[in-house]
Amino acid sequence: MGSFIHDNFLLQTKTAQELFHRHAARMAIFDYHCHIPPQDIAIDRHFANLTQIWLYGDHYKWRAMRTNGVDEKYCTGNASDWEKFEKWAMTVPFTLRNPLYHWTHLELKRFFGIDKLLSPATAREIWETCNVKLNTPEYSVRNIIRMANVHTICTTDDPVDSLEHHRTIKASGFEVRVLPAWRPDKAMMVENSVTYNQYVDQLAAVSGIEIATFPQLMEALEKRHQFFHENGCRLSDHGLETAYAEDFTEKEIEAIFVKIRNGKTLNAEEILKFKSCMLYEFGIMDHRRGWTQQFHLGALRNNNTRLFRTLGPDTGFDSIGDFEIARPLSRLLDRLDTKNRLAKTILYNLNPRDNELIGTMIGNFQDGSVPGKIQFGSGWWFLDQKDGMEKQIQALSNLGLISRFVGMLTDSRSFLSYTRHEYFRRILCNILGNDVEKGEIPADMELLGQMVENISFNNAYNYFGF
Amino acid sequence: MGSFIHDNFLLQTKTAQELFHRHAARMAIFDYHCHIPPQDIAIDRHFANLTQIWLYGDHYKWRAMRTNGVDEKYCTGNASDWEKFEKWAMTVPFTLRNPLYHWTHLELKRFFGIDKLLSPATAREIWETCNVKLNTPEYSVRNIIRMANVHTICTTDDPVDSLEHHRTIKASGFEVRVLPAWRPDKAMMVENSVTYNQYVDQLAAVSGIEIATFPQLMEALEKRHQFFHENGCRLSDHGLETAYAEDFTEKEIEAIFVKIRNGKTLNAEEILKFKSCMLYEFGIMDHRRGWTQQFHLGALRNNNTRLFRTLGPDTGFDSIGDFEIARPLSRLLDRLDTKNRLAKTILYNLNPRDNELIGTMIGNFQDGSVPGKIQFGSGWWFLDQKDGMEKQIQALSNLGLISRFVGMLTDSRSFLSYTRHEYFRRILCNILGNDVEKGEIPADMELLGQMVENISFNNAYNYFGF
Amino acid sequence: MGSFIHDNFLLQTKTAQELFHRHAARMAIFDYHCHIPPQDIAIDRHFANLTQIWLYGDHYKWRAMRTNGVDEKYCTGNASDWEKFEKWAMTVPFTLRNPLYHWTHLELKRFFGIDKLLSPATAREIWETCNVKLNTPEYSVRNIIRMANVHTICTTDDPVDSLEHHRTIKASGFEVRVLPAWRPDKAMMVENSVTYNQYVDQLAAVSGIEIATFPQLMEALEKRHQFFHENGCRLSDHGLETAYAEDFTEKEIEAIFVKIRNGKTLNAEEILKFKSCMLYEFGIMDHRRGWTQQFHLGALRNNNTRLFRTLGPDTGFDSIGDFEIARPLSRLLDRLDTKNRLAKTILYNLNPRDNELIGTMIGNFQDGSVPGKIQFGSGWWFLDQKDGMEKQIQALSNLGLISRFVGMLTDSRSFLSYTRHEYFRRILCNILGNDVEKGEIPADMELLGQMVENISFNNAYNYFGF
Repeated sequence: MGSFIHDNFLLQTKTAQELFHRHAARMAIFDYHCHIPPQDIAIDRHFANLTQIWLYGDHYKWRAMRTNGVDEKYCTGNASDWEKFEKWAMTVPFTLRNPLYHWTHLELKRFFGIDKLLSPATAREIWETCNVKLNTPEYSVRNIIRMANVHTICTTDDPVDSLEHHRTIKASGFEVRVLPAWRPDKAMMVENSVTYNQYVDQLAAVSGIEIATFPQLMEALEKRHQFFHENGCRLSDHGLETAYAEDFTEKEIEAIFVKIRNGKTLNAEEILKFKSCMLYEFGIMDHRRGWTQQFHLGALRNNNTRLFRTLGPDTGFDSIGDFEIARPLSRLLDRLDTKNRLAKTILYNLNPRDNELIGTMIGNFQDGSVPGKIQFGSGWWFLDQKDGMEKQIQALSNLGLISRFVGMLTDSRSFLSYTRHEYFRRILCNILGNDVEKGEIPADMELLGQMVENISFNNAYNYFGF
Repeated sequence: MGSFIHDNFLLQTKTAQELFHRHAARMAIFDYHCHIPPQDIAIDRHFANLTQIWLYGDHYKWRAMRTNGVDEKYCTGNASDWEKFEKWAMTVPFTLRNPLYHWTHLELKRFFGIDKLLSPATAREIWETCNVKLNTPEYSVRNIIRMANVHTICTTDDPVDSLEHHRTIKASGFEVRVLPAWRPDKAMMVENSVTYNQYVDQLAAVSGIEIATFPQLMEALEKRHQFFHENGCRLSDHGLETAYAEDFTEKEIEAIFVKIRNGKTLNAEEILKFKSCMLYEFGIMDHRRGWTQQFHLGALRNNNTRLFRTLGPDTGFDSIGDFEIARPLSRLLDRLDTKNRLAKTILYNLNPRDNELIGTMIGNFQDGSVPGKIQFGSGWWFLDQKDGMEKQIQALSNLGLISRFVGMLTDSRSFLSYTRHEYFRRILCNILGNDVEKGEIPADMELLGQMVENISFNNAYNYFGF
Repeated sequence: MGSFIHDNFLLQTKTAQELFHRHAARMAIFDYHCHIPPQDIAIDRHFANLTQIWLYGDHYKWRAMRTNGVDEKYCTGNASDWEKFEKWAMTVPFTLRNPLYHWTHLELKRFFGIDKLLSPATAREIWETCNVKLNTPEYSVRNIIRMANVHTICTTDDPVDSLEHHRTIKASGFEVRVLPAWRPDKAMMVENSVTYNQYVDQLAAVSGIEIATFPQLMEALEKRHQFFHENGCRLSDHGLETAYAEDFTEKEIEAIFVKIRNGKTLNAEEILKFKSCMLYEFGIMDHRRGWTQQFHLGALRNNNTRLFRTLGPDTGFDSIGDFEIARPLSRLLDRLDTKNRLAKTILYNLNPRDNELIGTMIGNFQDGSVPGKIQFGSGWWFLDQKDGMEKQIQALSNLGLISRFVGMLTDSRSFLSYTRHEYFRRILCNILGNDVEKGEIPADMELLGQMVENISFNNAYNYFGF
């Protein structure tokens, strides 16, 4: 048996192979949404071993390990790095058919040249081989990014962030563009008045604006938005259960804000009104400065209270929700469009049952001003796998124009995740190859090659206008 | 590269090819639901050019053009017919993988014998070739219908419609049966009391019945229902977000009707009660006269207020909703069934996530009186494409009896859409061919051939009983 | 044309064939959830003819017959057994592409050695052949179970059940393990105070505990739970529209229980609170005794009032609902987990649109204590077919660890349904074979063979700990 990750991995047809090797493979990576820490790039971090770069922050792997009967000690606990790796290696053969199986071996192959399948039998050898490499200069964070042929990276940052690391990176002359993205989720989290007020105080401090009233809150956010803009940001992002688009008046919002600043607890209606207002206002800001706004819809987060208390958020206890999406999302976008203030927008749904809903929602607000102005975002989080991507590509193709798609992003916390772009491109080329084989699209290699290059890189490059 | 639309387009197996060419292709078209204007048939209209027959009323194409960055001027605006066509031709290569790509080339091939792919390079030539043909007697509306081998057409008509065009057509001796269908949506649109009262006044005028009370409203509708019946109508249709089946009393409904006739605005509960009553009453009427009722469920309409104000409804700003369907739909059908008044019914869902819900809902009310009494309607609107049809066929097959399916309809506003029947039949035959190849159904060509002929034509012919 | 059900039925690749014949086929059946009457095993029942074993209790077949235009007389009515069989035979050719077509011929082949396809032409011959066999000792219920190589059976039993048949079976020395499962749905059905109080009275009688208060209800249920435990039960099951997880206080529940014991009708909020409490308490009991709890979520039952009145429940008038599931289910599981009382749990969804929701929900509560502690149950009821199973396998694979899956169950009321395990295993092996062919998993036959054996039998055997 040859390499599992061979040249034509996932490429079932000659057409797919040609599209991938001649077109997709040569395009750089435009990673417009991820969660890597900019500090690691600023200091050009080295990781001491595979566990540190691979397992320290990866809730996907922790979930798989827990499911496989591995104790928390080996996921997020105080076991040694080797012990954690060993438990992961024991889990890998049980991840067959899960994207982790592909991701794991793709990352081992591309970054470390390893062809062996990870299992208890190969764990020690792979551990040692990788660790030797990780301890060479070639495996600093920046060199890994270069190895992956990355052109642009957009991180995910809070409005109160100083963006110092982004400025350090820029000043250092790093040839890969690393830009911040505006993620003001905390400015909307009014469920808990204590943490919210702490956050508003932080915002007041960093903006130099006293925040006692709602207009002052907006002034401070506006100032930070401008600051992000000056630091190259052209992209916002919102993590939401669903869109919020209730009716509200200025008066109501001002009263709600005073109430929370006085430490009172808001009721459900007030929370909804406040969030509806904030989303609208953020949309206005993004439009004013020509940014793109992203909505990540549909996650039900922090389901496990017991482990949330110990481990905090983003540790593998989130799942797919079943929220009503169509009406509020339509209202929010329409409200902005009616004022001629609808920014370029990317909609990501976490529940694949909403693929067709989103695939048609975007069509409601395409206004001819920019090709693909409203985008259906790539398969996200749990859907960031072959099936999930294929379904998103299929829905977008059937209901919109896949040719105008801005394509893939890593959405990752790991520096080894750039192979997900390769993974996506192979899947895309494979779909097109199958289409050609079945006679569903013409075998026009020039047209198809251009399409692949566009979705791989050009569309994003042209769309975001950094 | 040969023709894109060749003889075996979409037919991947020998079985599929045999089923299509020997069975499906020879069946006439029974188009039991569409939106073509009967006037055009009455006057046997000619279209001056391809833009007029293809682009004037086609919101699918407008949506694609807007998504492709084309200005509204070239969609619904005052650009010249050639300019509009040119913009469409520029958009076509970007519709790869969208049903428009297939529809476009299937229509060009079948109606105009064109084998070239539409693009800026071929636009002028195709424009000219088609326009020459369109200006010959062979391309009158009736001749196009004949060319497509159509047996029966059911249009979509409002209860206040005079049906004059249907009578003209009948009187003219046109050998294709053209029947009206009853679509009383406006009689339920009580959200806006001004437009509703205008509508009721129209209804009063056309029926010759003064309408001040709810019983009078019913009397007028009943009279129009009878009038439609006399004009050959055997089919109703309702465009709904979801089914309405709240409890209500006669007294409540009478009071609600008086309230709206007095120009007052109804609250949400009153609207729901009123619609619940109307749907029930319409069902009773349909059952009494042996009609079939159709429910088109799940569209979220007119999402774009700005363009709705300029362009009106049905201009490409509708999308897929996520309404609760199971409970109200079950209650409505059960309410009618309990009274032994459940008419033959076809359920269409717009959100494919509800395919299995609908596929099982129909089984609750099959009573053995008529094969396939309750039908799961063919992939509709956004789902009127290969994937959408395949999923509907798959869900219906798994959860009901596909053999009893009444099959395809165009649902179209265009006289060139009859090829969608061919498209559907190819997809159906291809599915069966793949089944045979995989050994999932026996290779009994007599059984399968009959099944294909039934779904293509016979089932609908027998079911509707025109 | 050879046998329709041949050796490699559904096995498209060499790999699939090898996995099935060398691994899957040799594993015994662990049928951990079904609805067969234990009495039939206790008395080792014989069925007089094919109609009695096949059609008397099978609402799947009745639904298909009704859809095919067969009168109720031949489904549940007073037609003769032969007449009923004849109508079924007439319906079978119309079930092409429905799972009934496969199930029917798989059962005829495996239990009766019949290779002919059932149709009006073969009905008489098949009827006679099968009836001759059914009237031999080899076709007693126990011998049918032996023929199917069954290792363990879990039936579905009410807390008030005496379990006498289970004890009879055990005492008889029947080598197949037949265990009860705890299904306390009636203890939660507080919608109707009359039937609920009758049930509570029954429970009081069988437990010997007077039940006037909620603690007494719990004491009686607790006693029955212990009794079931002593009779080998390690498994509970709940048929629910969705999970219930409202806030409630002990006081509230006590008052609600007194209210219903006084014959009053509860309001919607009280019903929800009561059910939320009961589900929680049942979970606590299951955890205490090391049981596994099963939730069957999402059926909309008894949709047809007219036939419910004549025929009662479970007669083919249920369908797929669209209930909100994520939030209440998360709350219920979290509530139990927070108290460290979350038992092993299997979640089954009836609406396939919730596959991914469930596939990620289970990950929230995997705690590393047991591999696959929280399970995503196999395609259930309407989803118990090739597509439904494939989608469940796909979702579970993508979002969890299919390797840890406890696999298939019949969920059936018929003694001929054990072939559904074969059906499932063929589908599973076929999926893996296709994966190998496409290079998506390595062609490691040892790893894959073990995986198939585990999912076919070992995982369930190890998981339930009977």
